[in-house]
Amino acid sequence: MVRARSEERRADILRAALEVIAERGYRGATLGSVAERVGLTQQGLLHYYPTKEALLVAVLEERDRWDTSGGRDREGWRLDLMESLVEYNAMRPGIVQTFSALLGESVTDGHPAREFFTERYTQVRASMADTLRQEFGDRLPGGLTPERAAPLVTAVMDGLQYQWLLDPSAVDMPGAFRDFVRLLYGSDAPA
Amino acid sequence: MVRARSEERRADILRAALEVIAERGYRGATLGSVAERVGLTQQGLLHYYPTKEALLVAVLEERDRWDTSGGRDREGWRLDLMESLVEYNAMRPGIVQTFSALLGESVTDGHPAREFFTERYTQVRASMADTLRQEFGDRLPGGLTPERAAPLVTAVMDGLQYQWLLDPSAVDMPGAFRDFVRLLYGSDAPA
Repeated sequence: MVRARSEERRADILRAALEVIAERGYRGATLGSVAERVGLTQQGLLHYYPTKEALLVAVLEERDRWDTSGGRDREGWRLDLMESLVEYNAMRPGIVQTFSALLGESVTDGHPAREFFTERYTQVRASMADTLRQEFGDRLPGGLTPERAAPLVTAVMDGLQYQWLLDPSAVDMPGAFRDFVRLLYGSDAPA
Repeated sequence: MVRARSEERRADILRAALEVIAERGYRGATLGSVAERVGLTQQGLLHYYPTKEALLVAVLEERDRWDTSGGRDREGWRLDLMESLVEYNAMRPGIVQTFSALLGESVTDGHPAREFFTERYTQVRASMADTLRQEFGDRLPGGLTPERAAPLVTAVMDGLQYQWLLDPSAVDMPGAFRDFVRLLYGSDAPA
């Protein structure tokens, strides 16, 4: 019962954090503003998430869970779902900004989010390769193996986000991602 | 004469900053350590570069100038040169880490490097599209126009850097970039 209440409280905090991120972006998403939104003191919030980084990592983990699960079954990183995901991301700059800023920080020495991102990418590449293999077998129509396509799909998604965040009107993020998916399909590309 | 000395001093500072970045990475590249390396007081260094961000942006601008100029003529962002550049980057994690960390920070509101990166990408995309058009005409063998290929090339380079910085042994950055270039060549890809 205590455990259930605590889980519920964590879910409330993550929802509140997501709202604050959507409204105020990475810099505005302070522990204080999230605590206020969810009706906790800052001290109370620290009991669940001891740092801003820990809270944001939890938000990003939760987002990954939502983004890769469709309907009853886990769907994994299917290419057509990825296209929809990039379209969806283009409508939520706050969380994309938070992801991109934290990813940028995480590559510096000793950053608290480094382990999360390192493990995330290991899992994303493996899960994406699995999903591509189920869809295409040992080789995608454009010629790459699933294992060699996976880091590229991930890189294109991440890299486009930086260009789009800096200059949304200059970069058609979903269109560019669809261009890339067509390259993976090679001459078999759907029109 | 005074101008020439000042330009020379700036060049010395950027060289020193590049050395410190190579040795100590993004976090270690403090104004104090760069000042010490070049034989200035920190106050003296601030006369040339008032903040760490201003200094790092100047280093990244200088790197872009070197990276895109070969021999006597400016070469721009030619695809085969890009492959060599990614190979070269895989041997200099310090500067790649500095670029990636600063790019990550720059997408947050009001960051001092935001303008630099926004303009950089505008220029990189335009220059890359020009170079691709000179090489391939209106359409790359894989089917994309130069203008639609340019943001993807840039995104793949940037995105792979994050995965590689987090886990160098798991990501063959130059190999993955070559895979992507082969996709751009489509079925005309050199073996």
